[in-house]
Amino acid sequence: MNKVDLSLYLVTDNSDNEEKFLKTIEDAILGGVSVVQIREKTADTLDFYNLALKVKKITGKYNVPLIINDRVDIALAIDADGVHVGQSDMPCDVTRKLIGKDKILGVSAATVEEAQKAEKDGADYIGTGAIFPTATKDDAESVTINELKEIVESINIPVVAIGGITLKNASELVDTGIAGLSVVSAIMSADNPKKASEELLNIFNS
Amino acid sequence: MNKVDLSLYLVTDNSDNEEKFLKTIEDAILGGVSVVQIREKTADTLDFYNLALKVKKITGKYNVPLIINDRVDIALAIDADGVHVGQSDMPCDVTRKLIGKDKILGVSAATVEEAQKAEKDGADYIGTGAIFPTATKDDAESVTINELKEIVESINIPVVAIGGITLKNASELVDTGIAGLSVVSAIMSADNPKKASEELLNIFNS
Repeated sequence: MNKVDLSLYLVTDNSDNEEKFLKTIEDAILGGVSVVQIREKTADTLDFYNLALKVKKITGKYNVPLIINDRVDIALAIDADGVHVGQSDMPCDVTRKLIGKDKILGVSAATVEEAQKAEKDGADYIGTGAIFPTATKDDAESVTINELKEIVESINIPVVAIGGITLKNASELVDTGIAGLSVVSAIMSADNPKKASEELLNIFNS
Repeated sequence: MNKVDLSLYLVTDNSDNEEKFLKTIEDAILGGVSVVQIREKTADTLDFYNLALKVKKITGKYNVPLIINDRVDIALAIDADGVHVGQSDMPCDVTRKLIGKDKILGVSAATVEEAQKAEKDGADYIGTGAIFPTATKDDAESVTINELKEIVESINIPVVAIGGITLKNASELVDTGIAGLSVVSAIMSADNPKKASEELLNIFNS
């Protein structure tokens, strides 16, 4: 199993304003983000590739792992640190074969069954959510805090919670056994992404 | 350079009616289609992957090469015969590195410069179009028959013409030096895909 510090896991959103997007990622890392995932669901492959290269310069500078959502080809092309796949993406076992054993493989799982299958199929960690209502991903299945705890207890790989996590509700997750908080809007849309990151990490470590 | 019979090159469209989609591909192969490319611009990765596996069973049965549009990860995952990339997809040289030297690599090029760069960067063939007005790809640049001839003469790898090719206009392309006709609607939307394929191939070989 590949180990990664999942304490504060940033998933990116809309990169239309690229300069602001890249600055937000760098500020978030300076504030304590421990892993960055690029999620681009509509970009042309070339645009995604070029963006990923730019983000990799930033994550590389701070030695923070860079994960690519869904697109194994982009991850291989830029030699990212890993890939994150959902239940509608490439199957976990196929993804593991494509990326090899040394890259990080994360899988979204909303049930104990999905999480156990992902562990068996080569996942290094699980992302579980949405925990709270979220505007970013309106098709996400919702997972209660009790279900999150059940998933954590059912597998031996770490779990990050994702979906609607904010400074106001993050403390509700501290005792669930998760390895980290995964956020999009709470950092990407924050007025001060560095401060938001510091505060989220403080809550998680408290 | 990997050699492939490009005489009649089928590019797929909408696969919503999967049963009909797969039957059309098989009928087209029985009618003489020499290479099949799957193009899916909106499908989830898992759906694309599963569809590609099904198409591969058909192309494999008839020993017809299967090319995946854009998605190098899908091509690698199902061990397709090759990949076709456009100017907004993964760069040609990066694609070649990812797929290795033995898989077929096609590149869309609308100018002599694009075609020559693709040849230099490892392409096995060029797709050039749109030659005639087309409903399938409304963002395609248009290429005149004279420009098509210029591209054919400017490189040493084969060129297929694509874009709005029908039974009515295909004969206009016979003397351009192309290695084949590439069609979408003329076969995928034909009442009789096998007959349409036979007729297109007859025109090309005449």
